[in-house]
Amino acid sequence: MSTIIDVAESSKTHANENEKAALISAPQRPGGWKKGIAIMDFILRLGAIAASLGAAITMATSDQILPFFTQFFQFEASYDSFSTFQFFVIAMAFVGGYLVLSLPFSIVAIIRPHANGPRLFLIILDTVFLTLATASGASAAAIVYLAHNGNQDSNWLAICNQFGDFCAQTSGAVVSSFVAVVVLLLLIVMSSLALKKH
Amino acid sequence: MSTIIDVAESSKTHANENEKAALISAPQRPGGWKKGIAIMDFILRLGAIAASLGAAITMATSDQILPFFTQFFQFEASYDSFSTFQFFVIAMAFVGGYLVLSLPFSIVAIIRPHANGPRLFLIILDTVFLTLATASGASAAAIVYLAHNGNQDSNWLAICNQFGDFCAQTSGAVVSSFVAVVVLLLLIVMSSLALKKH
Repeated sequence: MSTIIDVAESSKTHANENEKAALISAPQRPGGWKKGIAIMDFILRLGAIAASLGAAITMATSDQILPFFTQFFQFEASYDSFSTFQFFVIAMAFVGGYLVLSLPFSIVAIIRPHANGPRLFLIILDTVFLTLATASGASAAAIVYLAHNGNQDSNWLAICNQFGDFCAQTSGAVVSSFVAVVVLLLLIVMSSLALKKH
Repeated sequence: MSTIIDVAESSKTHANENEKAALISAPQRPGGWKKGIAIMDFILRLGAIAASLGAAITMATSDQILPFFTQFFQFEASYDSFSTFQFFVIAMAFVGGYLVLSLPFSIVAIIRPHANGPRLFLIILDTVFLTLATASGASAAAIVYLAHNGNQDSNWLAICNQFGDFCAQTSGAVVSSFVAVVVLLLLIVMSSLALKKH
């Protein structure tokens, strides 16, 4: 007799649990996940600002003067020796500035998760600045690679043996710019996904 | 009496014209402009295929042997002297291959202009390959710039005085890759606009 009651009891609690699970998995509001994506967008955007401005500042402060000099020469390497690095600093500053200015639109997307206007605006501008960030990061990476390895056939010697600190700093800036690129890619993919469903 | 009739006549034809104009400007089907964007997408995609594969082939066939040589050396410049140019060839071939494989999805978007699935798929993959194309184009541009101008501070000499044909061919490949980048940007902007409205 007791066993039967037990079974009935357990089946009842089971049904209760199912009900609870259904309640939890059901969305409280229809656009809850869109709000979640908008908040994630805002946080990632803060990370991308740090990465891009960090890259610009690291590159702009890279400067190394060798401790020996001749009567006529002082051996110095700085970012403005290479026009590619100058482009890098300017482009990364632009990307960081754009990302700061885009924060209000990201906040609007949090407040109104169903408005597609700001989201579309952000996708298009993000794509443009993704291209700018990738171009500056990749071209600086090509020069950093040459500085590390040199090139045999064109007789370009590696300068990182002499300018070790300079090379380390520029390499760090390039890595930081690639972090910004990856975050921007994520932002675009997330915004497109949020744009689709209703 | 006749003048009054004339006025009535002219006002009647005027009303007719207005009606016609209204008929012409009204869309025949609600999603007509989406179909137009899808067709434009397909055509631009063909252009991007030509640009990216053209860039890969131009770079891969760049090879110049100078007409003088010593007992031990033959002076030769080819794309595989520079690892950046090797990356360029591989990346551009990938981008071209992806664009060819994306054509069926573009056709699906023409046939079903209101289906958002293929459009979203294309936006996300387009963004990834835009990044790849930009990275390879920009890094190759940095090397081509060095080959043309050299760099004083690191004592890298311009090699384009000797290898003129090689430089011209690689510069052409870089320009072609930037055409592909611009077309990919346009494709993403167009697809996002088509994704939004209903």
